[in-house]
Amino acid sequence: MLEQLRDHAHTIVAKRHVGKLIAICRRLLSEPAEANSFAVARNVVREIEALDATSLPHFFDVLAKEFNPSPDDVLEAALRYKEDTNAQNLVHLMRVAEPQRQELFRRINRAPDGTRTLVRLRRRLLESKSDQRRWAAVEADLFHLFSSWFSPGFLEMRTVNWNSQAHVLEQVIQHEAVHAIDGWDDLRRRLQPDRRCFAFFHPQLAGTPLIFVEVALLAEMPSEIAPLLDKRAVVGAEKSFKVAVFYSISNCEPGLRGVSLGNFLIKRVAQALQDEMPQIKKFCTLSPIPTLRRWLVDAANGGDWFGMPTQMQRRCEAHVATLQNSFGDQLEGLGQAERVSALGKAEAASLSALAAAYLIYSARKENGDPVARFHLDNGARLERINVHANLAATGIKQSAGTMVNYLYDLDKVEDQRKSFVAGKVVFARGVVKDL
Amino acid sequence: MLEQLRDHAHTIVAKRHVGKLIAICRRLLSEPAEANSFAVARNVVREIEALDATSLPHFFDVLAKEFNPSPDDVLEAALRYKEDTNAQNLVHLMRVAEPQRQELFRRINRAPDGTRTLVRLRRRLLESKSDQRRWAAVEADLFHLFSSWFSPGFLEMRTVNWNSQAHVLEQVIQHEAVHAIDGWDDLRRRLQPDRRCFAFFHPQLAGTPLIFVEVALLAEMPSEIAPLLDKRAVVGAEKSFKVAVFYSISNCEPGLRGVSLGNFLIKRVAQALQDEMPQIKKFCTLSPIPTLRRWLVDAANGGDWFGMPTQMQRRCEAHVATLQNSFGDQLEGLGQAERVSALGKAEAASLSALAAAYLIYSARKENGDPVARFHLDNGARLERINVHANLAATGIKQSAGTMVNYLYDLDKVEDQRKSFVAGKVVFARGVVKDL
Amino acid sequence: MLEQLRDHAHTIVAKRHVGKLIAICRRLLSEPAEANSFAVARNVVREIEALDATSLPHFFDVLAKEFNPSPDDVLEAALRYKEDTNAQNLVHLMRVAEPQRQELFRRINRAPDGTRTLVRLRRRLLESKSDQRRWAAVEADLFHLFSSWFSPGFLEMRTVNWNSQAHVLEQVIQHEAVHAIDGWDDLRRRLQPDRRCFAFFHPQLAGTPLIFVEVALLAEMPSEIAPLLDKRAVVGAEKSFKVAVFYSISNCEPGLRGVSLGNFLIKRVAQALQDEMPQIKKFCTLSPIPTLRRWLVDAANGGDWFGMPTQMQRRCEAHVATLQNSFGDQLEGLGQAERVSALGKAEAASLSALAAAYLIYSARKENGDPVARFHLDNGARLERINVHANLAATGIKQSAGTMVNYLYDLDKVEDQRKSFVAGKVVFARGVVKDL
Amino acid sequence: MLEQLRDHAHTIVAKRHVGKLIAICRRLLSEPAEANSFAVARNVVREIEALDATSLPHFFDVLAKEFNPSPDDVLEAALRYKEDTNAQNLVHLMRVAEPQRQELFRRINRAPDGTRTLVRLRRRLLESKSDQRRWAAVEADLFHLFSSWFSPGFLEMRTVNWNSQAHVLEQVIQHEAVHAIDGWDDLRRRLQPDRRCFAFFHPQLAGTPLIFVEVALLAEMPSEIAPLLDKRAVVGAEKSFKVAVFYSISNCEPGLRGVSLGNFLIKRVAQALQDEMPQIKKFCTLSPIPTLRRWLVDAANGGDWFGMPTQMQRRCEAHVATLQNSFGDQLEGLGQAERVSALGKAEAASLSALAAAYLIYSARKENGDPVARFHLDNGARLERINVHANLAATGIKQSAGTMVNYLYDLDKVEDQRKSFVAGKVVFARGVVKDL
Repeated sequence: MLEQLRDHAHTIVAKRHVGKLIAICRRLLSEPAEANSFAVARNVVREIEALDATSLPHFFDVLAKEFNPSPDDVLEAALRYKEDTNAQNLVHLMRVAEPQRQELFRRINRAPDGTRTLVRLRRRLLESKSDQRRWAAVEADLFHLFSSWFSPGFLEMRTVNWNSQAHVLEQVIQHEAVHAIDGWDDLRRRLQPDRRCFAFFHPQLAGTPLIFVEVALLAEMPSEIAPLLDKRAVVGAEKSFKVAVFYSISNCEPGLRGVSLGNFLIKRVAQALQDEMPQIKKFCTLSPIPTLRRWLVDAANGGDWFGMPTQMQRRCEAHVATLQNSFGDQLEGLGQAERVSALGKAEAASLSALAAAYLIYSARKENGDPVARFHLDNGARLERINVHANLAATGIKQSAGTMVNYLYDLDKVEDQRKSFVAGKVVFARGVVKDL
Repeated sequence: MLEQLRDHAHTIVAKRHVGKLIAICRRLLSEPAEANSFAVARNVVREIEALDATSLPHFFDVLAKEFNPSPDDVLEAALRYKEDTNAQNLVHLMRVAEPQRQELFRRINRAPDGTRTLVRLRRRLLESKSDQRRWAAVEADLFHLFSSWFSPGFLEMRTVNWNSQAHVLEQVIQHEAVHAIDGWDDLRRRLQPDRRCFAFFHPQLAGTPLIFVEVALLAEMPSEIAPLLDKRAVVGAEKSFKVAVFYSISNCEPGLRGVSLGNFLIKRVAQALQDEMPQIKKFCTLSPIPTLRRWLVDAANGGDWFGMPTQMQRRCEAHVATLQNSFGDQLEGLGQAERVSALGKAEAASLSALAAAYLIYSARKENGDPVARFHLDNGARLERINVHANLAATGIKQSAGTMVNYLYDLDKVEDQRKSFVAGKVVFARGVVKDL
Repeated sequence: MLEQLRDHAHTIVAKRHVGKLIAICRRLLSEPAEANSFAVARNVVREIEALDATSLPHFFDVLAKEFNPSPDDVLEAALRYKEDTNAQNLVHLMRVAEPQRQELFRRINRAPDGTRTLVRLRRRLLESKSDQRRWAAVEADLFHLFSSWFSPGFLEMRTVNWNSQAHVLEQVIQHEAVHAIDGWDDLRRRLQPDRRCFAFFHPQLAGTPLIFVEVALLAEMPSEIAPLLDKRAVVGAEKSFKVAVFYSISNCEPGLRGVSLGNFLIKRVAQALQDEMPQIKKFCTLSPIPTLRRWLVDAANGGDWFGMPTQMQRRCEAHVATLQNSFGDQLEGLGQAERVSALGKAEAASLSALAAAYLIYSARKENGDPVARFHLDNGARLERINVHANLAATGIKQSAGTMVNYLYDLDKVEDQRKSFVAGKVVFARGVVKDL
Repeated sequence: MLEQLRDHAHTIVAKRHVGKLIAICRRLLSEPAEANSFAVARNVVREIEALDATSLPHFFDVLAKEFNPSPDDVLEAALRYKEDTNAQNLVHLMRVAEPQRQELFRRINRAPDGTRTLVRLRRRLLESKSDQRRWAAVEADLFHLFSSWFSPGFLEMRTVNWNSQAHVLEQVIQHEAVHAIDGWDDLRRRLQPDRRCFAFFHPQLAGTPLIFVEVALLAEMPSEIAPLLDKRAVVGAEKSFKVAVFYSISNCEPGLRGVSLGNFLIKRVAQALQDEMPQIKKFCTLSPIPTLRRWLVDAANGGDWFGMPTQMQRRCEAHVATLQNSFGDQLEGLGQAERVSALGKAEAASLSALAAAYLIYSARKENGDPVARFHLDNGARLERINVHANLAATGIKQSAGTMVNYLYDLDKVEDQRKSFVAGKVVFARGVVKDL
């Protein structure tokens, strides 16, 4: 009873706070466009930063409900434009159809730290546990603006190494999402001359990497992840470098979700490395298949075959049966590192074949493997399946220990992208053989 | 005859070139948004840079005619949004109403030098002698994007001084539009400790100032421009500085016309100077009234009184008569430095009164004095009219030798802006007395 | 037997290596002074770096024996100078009296990394376990040159903080000699806004701090070290800062031993902090008395009284007796943290009095407490003795848990220095009371 | 009479000023070496800067007379060292033989701007019109220290171009001593991509180039200077660059006279250019022979033949006679550009032969051509004589219009230096043919 009352009081306070904030937002918008409304914008920034978990949903609600175009104005402008598609009518249409929210966000962006505040705002929106669908237009507006503001043309690529500022390195440690970095010593090994790290920075978010990629320079394309992550691994000599392996790519800023950064970063890094070391001829990844084990377990229960041709599906079913002999009907053994590492030759071949089939047929579907979709959409080729490649906890749990090399052939990425977009996955002959 | 044939051939070649360029633009647009279409974008940049004077209008024509939203799609989306203003319908509306041109420009902006190319493209559009009205939508799209990309939050303010790079100084010499800089010696004087220069830079246009302002630090508010521009003037001592005078502000980039930069720059500079030298209490300008002489001549012929109250108009007419005694019926003497400098007390008072009335009543009108409109809209106060303030050629010809001090009282600018927007010019008591 | 043979062979190889190196050194010296002997100098640098532990003493031997001035030439020049002290004779004298070694080192210094090599060379000399006396002239020459090259005018003071390069921070962790830094987390706490770290850098040894000092900003002069070193201590607010405490100063480069850096650093830091935060009025240290326990134990056995007046010595003997009641005849309890922390009031007063007497009387002697000598010679005042100030292992073992605040009163340091040089220790009235 | 009195009064004031300054110098010296005598040193710097033209000679006099080693101490130390050359005796000798002046200068150097003050002090000493011989020891001490402080290892080489700071460029304009720069436009041409400029900077004299060299990148070794200096010359394309020509080298700091900078700079520049553009195979100069005309005129009057073999001298005399036919007995025509430019083939050959003989035989002598001595001592080869190479005023007056290419063959400079030091000038076969 008391608690309910307290909640109720909270809500009232929160709504009042939001009401006040919205009033300042309106004031900011009411300034003629050329105005210098720094002071007001700074005020809005301060108030947004002060929103607590209770107030935030109210703020999003008001943002979503108000600041929208007027349906009548839009309809009238659309009719006029339909009647005569001249420039005046078009410009008028654009003006009335654009939500005022966008102009609001643009003006907030003029304040010091405005960009940072808006990126954080979108992060909080995306992280909110409430039903976000009702805020979809708010989210779309922020995304629309970020795509423009974080255009690769405005980003700076920097090498991250032992000469970098400690607070940048700290963020790399914190945000590495693929192969966790175990403290400063581990990081230090990953910044030795045979490992590289590159990140994108934005002038308005100085000192904060947006995304980074880790690269290993090796003599040949790797089939296992453990040697790459070994803190005590001997540092390779520059003259032995033949292959650059992108073994980890991590976003640091959840508020930029969906804004294309990774593909631009990979291409820029590949270019930079080729300029520095012409002897490096091959650029590839060593990537997980994070949805593989789940798919196999489903498949063992007659799951989704992603529209494979019947013959292919039959062969896959046979491979699943082989695995069931080893790992149990529910393939429960696939989740245990010892059992995967003890895998016989025939079972390994089956696992490899299934992974290949899964990647090739699922990658074209929205619910296919996300890592495969990212690289193939980027123009990479599916080069090789590696069984036993990662027996660490996550590797086993998600990918059944299997990893893939995606190959970036810089001369062909554009054509291969097009093939993928047109519905065709490009893969190496070796992968076919696996099938 | 031959010439006509040659022109015709030219046109055919130009159209072919544009046709090819448009094809690449379409290809760039056809890439899914996440694609890394660097290579294509770079290609587009190269081809745009290669457009000659014959091809350019064709390119603008195609840009203006194609890449527009479909009227039917827009109408259908507007109807759906009218029916139900949910987020999905809104997002859909925004998508179909936005010209594809904007997405095209955003993608061009991803290429190295993309921003520079687009800024130059708008400059060429604005400088074109053809009828620009038919390209209004193209121009509007570029302006819309630039307003976002050149947000003050993304600009860097830098001090320009004798430690600056020579190529930056060279651009300052070249673009000073108010009081021409007569070579490096003149510039050097303007960068001594009692003069300051500040400029905005954009990360993507490194090394190119976008706009700069020149400031004089003085013991009191100046009433004449010549001492400020004197190359051999003795450098003032820091302890004597009480007033900071913005005596010149110039844009360097015609392609950014209309994008608000100057007002933000002035405010940032005032803040920076106050932080550095707290003893400076007054920030003002010494500005021309570039439309004054023309208005006086018109007024002498019964011109525009900008809706003055009748009594005021009567007094102004009396002042005009006083001037006509001195300068002739057509006020032709107003355009001669010797005659203006020999002005008697009564005539000077009349000139001052007329300038004050003109500024106060015209500033609220679109066709009013542009400099006055800029500063008053910025929140400045009309502080003082100075007769005999600038007897140099342009000063006489445009402003009849008269100049104005606009005062920036940092604590009041916000309120004064509002007054101006609400239709009220704020001016000092001294100016009233002039009337 | 075999081992002897092997050693012998080693020696032969080493001597040959040194012989070759000395030949290149002679070649470097034989070039006329203006010559560009880069190639030769670089060669010498490479060979010196390649000297192993066996060769090094041979190299020092030859350096010490050869490259000396000729006694006959010196004598002859001295006689001529005695006869007539004109400039020519003086210049001649200087030329023949200076060991050629110095010119050799100056030329080595022209090579890239020459400075680094010579600093390392002196470090190895000082660390050598052989009898160094025979290399005293070599050592003196290097010291003489370093005093010139590492003149404070040539050093750059930089703030070390979380924005510093990781490899600089790593060296701070590694070289902190007073209060060991326990990993990156500990360091991070020491770089929060209420802690500061400043270091000297030399352009030729970029990226390598030479010496650094750690400062705590506090509300009052501290009497215990533990709260300053607590990793989890709450960060103090800037407005509470009244006192800056130099709580640790560490050299990073043993090859520069004896070159004055610390006193210059402390003065520069004090100046920088005062410029930044005028509210800080007090600069002091919290320093160990590393020789105190040893002296007390000696005193208990009738040791060195540093020429105290008889009355003072009597009182000290009484205090020692008081301590012996508590800690045993040999004062063995002074080395145990629990017993020191359980000290009664009377014993604490005795310990404090003895520490004061020891510092005041020993500081003027060469074998007195080195930390006291450093700060007093720097012009600091002996401000307060703190019993129970450091109960950590080293603190107990060396200083019997006692620490001192030395006060840097920037207006008085020059005068107090002079007093100290003249044989007078300046101390606060509170310290007298302790006695 | 009055004037004499005034001078006398001046002298008294000057001596008093110097007396006060010397007292502070003594105080600075009396501080124990480790002392932080910043305040005192800063004081000395201030007082030295304040010395006027009257006081300065007095200051030099006192510096030269006092601060010298004691002849008795030196003699005693020399005797002890003669008796036993052990390290202790040597260290003692060095201590008593070094003038205290050096320690004084080293301590002055610790103050901010100390280095700058001392460099300026030596400049004023060298520029003084008084008899400098009595200050030779002061001068030698400064030179000794500067040679150590301005070691090439401590200098930073930087490219000077249109991105450089204006105040650096201004100094280049001002100090260009060989081919005067006619304002900013001329400078701008000399910084285009086919011209380069490099300078040495010292960390303590930031922003002040010490010496700079100008380089032209050309397709072939040039025989005339005018095309290189032409402001309107078309900028050469990078792919055509085969030869790098050092066409001007100028010192900016007269206080560093005699300190070797130029030779180090040339070698570093050659290395940097070769690293950047491997297609450049040839490094040479286009240099004046500033003493040639004077020598020819002397020779026409039976002057100095620099120890040529008799046969060579005979041939030279014949060439002189040829020239006298054209230019008059006193060779007065050699000083007129029109007559030199109208030179017939035979006369040109004679002039060329004489220049070659002069350079080859004079370069080994102290009073030989200084430019030749600089480059040959640097290891360059005398590659080609160019008649009619510089018809500008100075070129005619000093070099009779003739210029030389000295060739820097980086692989051979070391050996050729040695040859030169050993008394042998290395020259190209073409030059022999001239003879």
